[in-house]
Amino acid sequence: MKKNLRIGLIGTGFMGRTHSNGYSQVAHFFPELEYRPVLQAVCSRNEASVKAFAEQWGYAAYETDWRALIARDDIDAVDICTPNDTHAEIAIAAAEAGKMILCEKPLARTVAEGQQMVDAINKAGVANTVWYNYRRIPAVSLAKQIVASGKLGKIFHYRANFLQDWTINADLPQGGAGLWRMDVAAAGSGVTGDLLAHCIDTAMWLNGAIVDVSAMTETFVKERMHQLTGKVEPVGIDDACIFHCHFANGSLGLFESTRYARGHKALYTFEINGEHASIRWDLHDLNRLEYFDHRDESIVRGWRSIHVTDGDQPYMGKWWVPGLGIGYEHSFIHQVADFLKSIETGAPCHPTFQDALETQKVCEAVIDSANARSWKDTGVESFAM
Amino acid sequence: MKKNLRIGLIGTGFMGRTHSNGYSQVAHFFPELEYRPVLQAVCSRNEASVKAFAEQWGYAAYETDWRALIARDDIDAVDICTPNDTHAEIAIAAAEAGKMILCEKPLARTVAEGQQMVDAINKAGVANTVWYNYRRIPAVSLAKQIVASGKLGKIFHYRANFLQDWTINADLPQGGAGLWRMDVAAAGSGVTGDLLAHCIDTAMWLNGAIVDVSAMTETFVKERMHQLTGKVEPVGIDDACIFHCHFANGSLGLFESTRYARGHKALYTFEINGEHASIRWDLHDLNRLEYFDHRDESIVRGWRSIHVTDGDQPYMGKWWVPGLGIGYEHSFIHQVADFLKSIETGAPCHPTFQDALETQKVCEAVIDSANARSWKDTGVESFAM
Amino acid sequence: MKKNLRIGLIGTGFMGRTHSNGYSQVAHFFPELEYRPVLQAVCSRNEASVKAFAEQWGYAAYETDWRALIARDDIDAVDICTPNDTHAEIAIAAAEAGKMILCEKPLARTVAEGQQMVDAINKAGVANTVWYNYRRIPAVSLAKQIVASGKLGKIFHYRANFLQDWTINADLPQGGAGLWRMDVAAAGSGVTGDLLAHCIDTAMWLNGAIVDVSAMTETFVKERMHQLTGKVEPVGIDDACIFHCHFANGSLGLFESTRYARGHKALYTFEINGEHASIRWDLHDLNRLEYFDHRDESIVRGWRSIHVTDGDQPYMGKWWVPGLGIGYEHSFIHQVADFLKSIETGAPCHPTFQDALETQKVCEAVIDSANARSWKDTGVESFAM
Amino acid sequence: MKKNLRIGLIGTGFMGRTHSNGYSQVAHFFPELEYRPVLQAVCSRNEASVKAFAEQWGYAAYETDWRALIARDDIDAVDICTPNDTHAEIAIAAAEAGKMILCEKPLARTVAEGQQMVDAINKAGVANTVWYNYRRIPAVSLAKQIVASGKLGKIFHYRANFLQDWTINADLPQGGAGLWRMDVAAAGSGVTGDLLAHCIDTAMWLNGAIVDVSAMTETFVKERMHQLTGKVEPVGIDDACIFHCHFANGSLGLFESTRYARGHKALYTFEINGEHASIRWDLHDLNRLEYFDHRDESIVRGWRSIHVTDGDQPYMGKWWVPGLGIGYEHSFIHQVADFLKSIETGAPCHPTFQDALETQKVCEAVIDSANARSWKDTGVESFAM
Repeated sequence: MKKNLRIGLIGTGFMGRTHSNGYSQVAHFFPELEYRPVLQAVCSRNEASVKAFAEQWGYAAYETDWRALIARDDIDAVDICTPNDTHAEIAIAAAEAGKMILCEKPLARTVAEGQQMVDAINKAGVANTVWYNYRRIPAVSLAKQIVASGKLGKIFHYRANFLQDWTINADLPQGGAGLWRMDVAAAGSGVTGDLLAHCIDTAMWLNGAIVDVSAMTETFVKERMHQLTGKVEPVGIDDACIFHCHFANGSLGLFESTRYARGHKALYTFEINGEHASIRWDLHDLNRLEYFDHRDESIVRGWRSIHVTDGDQPYMGKWWVPGLGIGYEHSFIHQVADFLKSIETGAPCHPTFQDALETQKVCEAVIDSANARSWKDTGVESFAM
Repeated sequence: MKKNLRIGLIGTGFMGRTHSNGYSQVAHFFPELEYRPVLQAVCSRNEASVKAFAEQWGYAAYETDWRALIARDDIDAVDICTPNDTHAEIAIAAAEAGKMILCEKPLARTVAEGQQMVDAINKAGVANTVWYNYRRIPAVSLAKQIVASGKLGKIFHYRANFLQDWTINADLPQGGAGLWRMDVAAAGSGVTGDLLAHCIDTAMWLNGAIVDVSAMTETFVKERMHQLTGKVEPVGIDDACIFHCHFANGSLGLFESTRYARGHKALYTFEINGEHASIRWDLHDLNRLEYFDHRDESIVRGWRSIHVTDGDQPYMGKWWVPGLGIGYEHSFIHQVADFLKSIETGAPCHPTFQDALETQKVCEAVIDSANARSWKDTGVESFAM
Repeated sequence: MKKNLRIGLIGTGFMGRTHSNGYSQVAHFFPELEYRPVLQAVCSRNEASVKAFAEQWGYAAYETDWRALIARDDIDAVDICTPNDTHAEIAIAAAEAGKMILCEKPLARTVAEGQQMVDAINKAGVANTVWYNYRRIPAVSLAKQIVASGKLGKIFHYRANFLQDWTINADLPQGGAGLWRMDVAAAGSGVTGDLLAHCIDTAMWLNGAIVDVSAMTETFVKERMHQLTGKVEPVGIDDACIFHCHFANGSLGLFESTRYARGHKALYTFEINGEHASIRWDLHDLNRLEYFDHRDESIVRGWRSIHVTDGDQPYMGKWWVPGLGIGYEHSFIHQVADFLKSIETGAPCHPTFQDALETQKVCEAVIDSANARSWKDTGVESFAM
Repeated sequence: MKKNLRIGLIGTGFMGRTHSNGYSQVAHFFPELEYRPVLQAVCSRNEASVKAFAEQWGYAAYETDWRALIARDDIDAVDICTPNDTHAEIAIAAAEAGKMILCEKPLARTVAEGQQMVDAINKAGVANTVWYNYRRIPAVSLAKQIVASGKLGKIFHYRANFLQDWTINADLPQGGAGLWRMDVAAAGSGVTGDLLAHCIDTAMWLNGAIVDVSAMTETFVKERMHQLTGKVEPVGIDDACIFHCHFANGSLGLFESTRYARGHKALYTFEINGEHASIRWDLHDLNRLEYFDHRDESIVRGWRSIHVTDGDQPYMGKWWVPGLGIGYEHSFIHQVADFLKSIETGAPCHPTFQDALETQKVCEAVIDSANARSWKDTGVESFAM
């Protein structure tokens, strides 16, 4: 007999949908799990829209006040999908209520906020995870497996970027529904927290702690109409951010993110160069991992394009047959599965709040470095790999 | 208030899963539809396994005899996911029982069987569709839209192939659980009905009727252990099939399929060359469509790699945000959505049984041509495009 | 002290340039060869143009009558770069004059012509080669090396195509300067002799004799203005040709060529699928060879993109450093080098006239098959691999 | 009647070969030029080897002392292909002797050396150019044409890298024949002067002056055997260098180079993102330019892969037919052609010594920034675009 894990979801935007889909799908593809999620309640401020969302996804109940949702005693886990400025308050309240917490990334707007959240979690001793979902794209998980196997040898280089082009139009407003990522008060930062945070999480998971950074940011469009005030206001977010860094293992890192790279919708790529082998990945073709092994016979040596759809590759035994790809949304289903498994085993489900706090430290050091035009230490001492 | 469409699914193999997923997901992403599928009952001969399947996917009931399933009066539509040799009998019985029918492809083993099925459907006047799912990969649907727009101009060439490599091992048995596709009695043919049928359906949908064919088939491994008899028996299926043909519009067609193309898991590709523009697609990178337009300024003319993930591209407004791909399984969700919509509007949901019968005619002409070493007319006079 | 090989070139069109470049460059990159070509004389009917060509390329003399060139006693080797309808007459005369012969492909318009040429060569006992230059693209030579090593195992499939788009415009005239390839009297055939002949030569070199064929041809534009007559005349060439075939080793072949594939300038590709491994190549990215080896560890198995620019790969030790590609023209330089080497060693320089005659037999069987709408045996019994 | 430009080449290594090939080939493909190069004399210290080189390439004479070569009155232009530490001395002497100068890149080891060279050139008033050859790859020249046309709109981002993997082996010695690039005394720097200098030249040509930089360098292997001394000595070069920067036009730059990126032989890539369109290029597939234009109709918008082999694209009218690629070496032939044309017209042949000095300033600022761990202004005020 399956055990229920009753979910209370806060926020019905883009991430509310990806998470709800994760809960809906996990039992279909991971039937062996002891726990199964139950869509108990969902919360959003607009009653009409939260009611429609509840119907669409099969949530048993809805709330319009997140405090009411946390207060419900039929909820085991709270899932936070709201804008970044609310993560800390909600998470701390949920922890105090003894709920497990699944928090959308980035953990918070600042290290200070994040630290309070970690403290709250630690005090409450509740299960927790942060939705850095890209780790669980099968090709990315395979990259982890390859790195962990030692196939790459000593690492020299790590590079990643996350390029988009959706804010080039200077008439795009900032703030408000659907656009809170443009508003520094709500988001905390621009591409650094929204996009580079993903790159940094993956990077430290694959290659260890980032110890210092030297960064540059830019805001190309200096003023935009704010949707909430109706006024043209200064833009506070970083439209673009570039930094280089040292990893604790001595390798060099290079990161770039922008929303002004015409032609790239969501081009998250990373590449690792080791003594013996290299790997690279690209979100636009997410079922593929490229791998180069210098130990191959020289005349037939080349980058291998691995179509990560075989049953012996991470997560893929759960899906279809070789050659048939999966999509973006599956990374969330996998994270739900791993979270449920972690409840079963008692082991943490990485990235935890603590892991996400380390990523937050790098993000903050990056912004600080850019502002100061100087190198900054991140203060990250270790990272759960 | 939504109307229910109560589904009775027969067959719990690979296709039983893809269809069940389609039914499970459609309401989450197409909430505007008037009908929603209800997983009423599922049928398979092994009780333990069908019970587990019912639990996993949430079917309310299960049966171990397909006649019992069809006899249930709480079923509106029968979905046939069994091996090819049972399609005709089940479909005819379901039609006689007045059920709507969704039948996995190919329609049947032969044109004669298929014709009986079409006759039964016509007599019963029930809604019907055949799961040639690849039409509803967004990039393929976009190809259709481009062709229909006239952008290509007069068509000169259509070529497609479907290459796999999973039966190269001569020790692989034929027949029985998981391997009925290797047994000509169950499957009707080898790659022709299993793989080329997909290519032919897409081709005629995009480019009209195929009027004559000249084919070659090969069975590389002549004898295999049969799982059901335990004896080494001659292999009756075609391991590989190649044919060229004329389309009614005067263009030339070229098709190839094999399960002996080392390195290709499920490489379904097609390309169309027209007077002004060309398009090509590849299942291994299913979110991309390539497009070449000769009318582009000459110095910057080249094949465009279209990442089909934008809201104004077919079906993609239902999913995530630009750049975030979907997978193979989504083609089935889209077909469920379109079938539900067709119930709402009363229009047919193509490909219908009649459409699939035309495809069957081409398949049969291909096999006949290969056997006779001569050109064969297909008898296809038109195709619903 | 180097020995001179005095060249007399007939024909100053596109191929006259590629060959002249081969002779000019070979000593710079293959200094170890005993023989070096000397540009002794060039011949073309128009005196002004042949004179300019001689100056541009450094030919010591020129002629306007090819018989005069052959008659010169300061010529060791005659290079035939004229349209196909003149190959036989010139080659036979050159053989009778005891000259070595390098003949542009295809050998002739027909098997009958080709047989006369082979007879003349055999009688004269002169060194000879035919410019099927693509064999000597380093990536293609590497493919040969891989096949010869046995890495692929038993071969199941060979497929090739050569797609162009330069004759789609119905206003393009046929015949005359620069357009003799459009005139069946001069060319013998359309894409079959011009493009598929290349594919067939490579195919038989890599995979052995083609024993029977089933073909289809098409002439999309039925009438064109003839440049020489000024009249609109029926077009006699094949605009497109598709055929499938059996190789003597039991593998299946599939070939296609057209000048109506919008978006493809000179897309010559081939792919070989073997039991253990597969390879594929594409003229548009000629420095790359793709290779898939099923024996690679399963989780990191994929198509390798080999950038064939390393010193241990065929011919590349003669050029630059790894990563720096060469071009189309180098295939001719390599053939000159190999021809010079063959003079030194006395071994034949493949493809010889005899080899090219076998390719001619396949071409003729293809055209016959298409005309008769039936399978045809090629009569090829063996091929020098 | 053609005019001769008598070349005296100093240095017979890799670059001596690429330049000699440029001189040998230019008249074959650019017959319209008024001047043609004559291979008058070549110089290298080892007599046997310089004599062999002269024979191989057809130099009329040879010298073993570069001063003797410069002193010859049958030389019009001196071409410097020696290690970086000799550029200044030779160039200044050649300028004083009134010779035209073609100098291999980088101009010098330092800005101070480079400035002396520029002063000498200016005083002598002689024609000059520096072999930043990549500008003249046709796809790169096409990129320039696209940028100059304004198609990209306002530029936001420029990124480039040059990745190699040939020095990972810690047993590779430094210094001496074939390895002077590993010796800081001879080379001046590591990847910065060798590889990033190319990236910087292209970048400033395409996107204008780089005004400030923030850099990081690394030497992964700290000590290597020095070939000249036979002792293990500290390595003085940068094995890897990463920097970000601002261009004068407000766009952000990102550059990386390393010789420790396993799997990359000579991966020089650049990408430019503008308001309306983006372009990118990759030396490993040098005949292709990728182009994205946001103004394309949305449903068929994608990156275009332009195969730059058509007669209306830069330089390609001189070569073969569409679809047939050229190679690395052609960039040098094009530079020779443009240099000869500049003699004819009296216009400078960019990049001149002055242009190369600006690039040197950026290189030096990069090294200084890395050493100081702080931003540095480059001092570049303008760049000839």
